[in-house]
Amino acid sequence: MMGQDFGTWMQGVQADVERALENYLPAASAVPAKLHEAMRYTALGGGKRVRPLLAYASGALFGGDAQALARVASAVEMIHVYSLVHDDMPCMDDDDLRRGKPTVHVAYDEATALLVGDALQAQAFQTLADIDTVPPARLVQMLRLLAEAAGSAGMCGGQAIDLDSVGLSLTRDELERMHQLKTGAMLRVSVILGALCGKDLTSTELEALKAYSKAIGLAFQVVDDVLDATADSATLGKTAGKDAADNKPTYVSILGLDQSKELAEQLRREAHEALAPFGEQAQRLRELADLIVQRKA
Amino acid sequence: MMGQDFGTWMQGVQADVERALENYLPAASAVPAKLHEAMRYTALGGGKRVRPLLAYASGALFGGDAQALARVASAVEMIHVYSLVHDDMPCMDDDDLRRGKPTVHVAYDEATALLVGDALQAQAFQTLADIDTVPPARLVQMLRLLAEAAGSAGMCGGQAIDLDSVGLSLTRDELERMHQLKTGAMLRVSVILGALCGKDLTSTELEALKAYSKAIGLAFQVVDDVLDATADSATLGKTAGKDAADNKPTYVSILGLDQSKELAEQLRREAHEALAPFGEQAQRLRELADLIVQRKA
Repeated sequence: MMGQDFGTWMQGVQADVERALENYLPAASAVPAKLHEAMRYTALGGGKRVRPLLAYASGALFGGDAQALARVASAVEMIHVYSLVHDDMPCMDDDDLRRGKPTVHVAYDEATALLVGDALQAQAFQTLADIDTVPPARLVQMLRLLAEAAGSAGMCGGQAIDLDSVGLSLTRDELERMHQLKTGAMLRVSVILGALCGKDLTSTELEALKAYSKAIGLAFQVVDDVLDATADSATLGKTAGKDAADNKPTYVSILGLDQSKELAEQLRREAHEALAPFGEQAQRLRELADLIVQRKA
Repeated sequence: MMGQDFGTWMQGVQADVERALENYLPAASAVPAKLHEAMRYTALGGGKRVRPLLAYASGALFGGDAQALARVASAVEMIHVYSLVHDDMPCMDDDDLRRGKPTVHVAYDEATALLVGDALQAQAFQTLADIDTVPPARLVQMLRLLAEAAGSAGMCGGQAIDLDSVGLSLTRDELERMHQLKTGAMLRVSVILGALCGKDLTSTELEALKAYSKAIGLAFQVVDDVLDATADSATLGKTAGKDAADNKPTYVSILGLDQSKELAEQLRREAHEALAPFGEQAQRLRELADLIVQRKA
């Protein structure tokens, strides 16, 4: 697998994850059909699959079992997709376009969007709980980590802070804290859950992974802010320039464009340094850090 | 404990559950404070706690550990409360009053209500995963059962069918199928999760519990429909007469009031019969069946 170039590996994982989501999401023919159809509409056929890629890369480093990794990747992606569906609703960001397609509340209706998100969250825990190649005690730990990353001490908490920050001028520390919850928590847990599909981690290995995932979690958001300020909607597959229009504090509004780009580059280097103990074996994680910082959408 | 009268036992459990929720919900002082405050506003200080009562009654029958039961009870109540918060939102039932208090989107705002529900769902899985007095393999099974009951094959699925049924004339079978998902799934899983906090269940015992919980799950909804048609808002602590106003199919609209009351009574008897194998020990579960059918709110 290490012989493959990065692009080929990435496409292979994305195809794997698409198949896994196809399998682990309820069939569109199962009752209630409209809900299941809407869950599949939003979860399948698109997305960069950054969280699954992180889980696979980290899982490969520790010899993670393939079935377990497919379930971890699907679970973190389901949580991510549910958060997008709810985030796009009129009472939140009120966005009509996501991954180049009409958002769920536009393609269906608001009530369906609400239930799609709720059901995807439950489906994520179910998908993870069905892993049967990881010892139960560790699986409980993994379910616990996913719940924490998704909840009020993680992603939901970050969104709540984000909501309350509209129109405020945050300090850089406050902005970082918000993003380490809002986007960072799920990116970090993707790395850790992938690793937990394999052999036991030493505390040194765990700390190295945490340092790596903290750096790329933040880098991801800095780059998101840069892209929101510089790219167009067609490239992003979502409405560009929303942050400024919504009067939201961003890295670009606090640091300016050039310093934001420099910060992203610095975080990329920190991610690489954190991986030093793993040597060559961590090549995919390094490449993902590069991808996160150098992406154009 | 069996020496206590039912009312005293029930109050004891309700006080236990209130304390447990106080503990297992994030502190209102923890960041993000507004989100945590809103989670506590809606989850604490009210509610009949029917699902926790079922878990405690069933747990007592199998010698369930007290800490595990408190966590199971809190988890099922958190899922229930999150579903109420989302259900009350303008895009769903648009209700201003719940348990005699302004609903979350009225007391706070819609975006906060959305996040409160999302975060409570995650908190439920976290609270359950933190049980340390049940063998891990069984705990994984419990987490899986909770996810299934909460998701598109359970509660969320029932709500989706409910949404699509507005203005339709369902058959009695279709109405039953909807309610066995919408309300029944979480009531049934409360009984089963409570039991799983104790000794191993034989398949006969599991089947008896399933028959009991199926009967009371349906009875609960039949009585809900009867109360919605007959009680006033002050007694219910929520807006009465909503179903007819919303043109929703109910047992009362399909069977009429008298036959609906008869059906509830028949289901109460079925619940009692299902408990026969347990003898005297199942007294609390019998009393809960009576409470569910004979309640006035």
